[in-house]
Amino acid sequence: MDTEIRKALQKSLGKCIKKIRLDKGLKQNEVARRCGFYKSNYNSIELGLRNVSLINIYKIAFALEEPISSFFDDVEFSQFLEHYNDK
Amino acid sequence: MDTEIRKALQKSLGKCIKKIRLDKGLKQNEVARRCGFYKSNYNSIELGLRNVSLINIYKIAFALEEPISSFFDDVEFSQFLEHYNDK
Repeated sequence: MDTEIRKALQKSLGKCIKKIRLDKGLKQNEVARRCGFYKSNYNSIELGLRNVSLINIYKIAFALEEPISSFFDDVEFSQFLEHYNDK
Repeated sequence: MDTEIRKALQKSLGKCIKKIRLDKGLKQNEVARRCGFYKSNYNSIELGLRNVSLINIYKIAFALEEPISSFFDDVEFSQFLEHYNDK
């Protein structure tokens, strides 16, 4: 998998997480605290700079009280898959 | 997050992935090849022994041509969240 698509996938997750956090009126500080992350680390996840692990995705989901399925956009997935298969 | 719940979360993902693979009539060898993983590594993911990264979850989703949201069971998530909050 090339770097371009990796970055896009990480950004996609970060964008979804950020949207959910803002919809719930939560600050990064608060979510980071609930997850047990440094705020800078949490911020870098929202910015799509990290290849976050399953367990850390769950920590965020628990902190936001939102199922992980809502972190992934199925329409965007189809576009990624198409792009991926074209390579 | 304690070890018990970590293991349960990893197992939950592995179980979902395995079910989708079997429903599609695919062998572990084939999915591992598509992902670029050794078969033993792929098998350990299905067994829930790995804290797999976002990018590797995507590789599996692309290999199975199935959106990531289908890897996570929302009902089970609620149970995990309840268990997690009890701790």
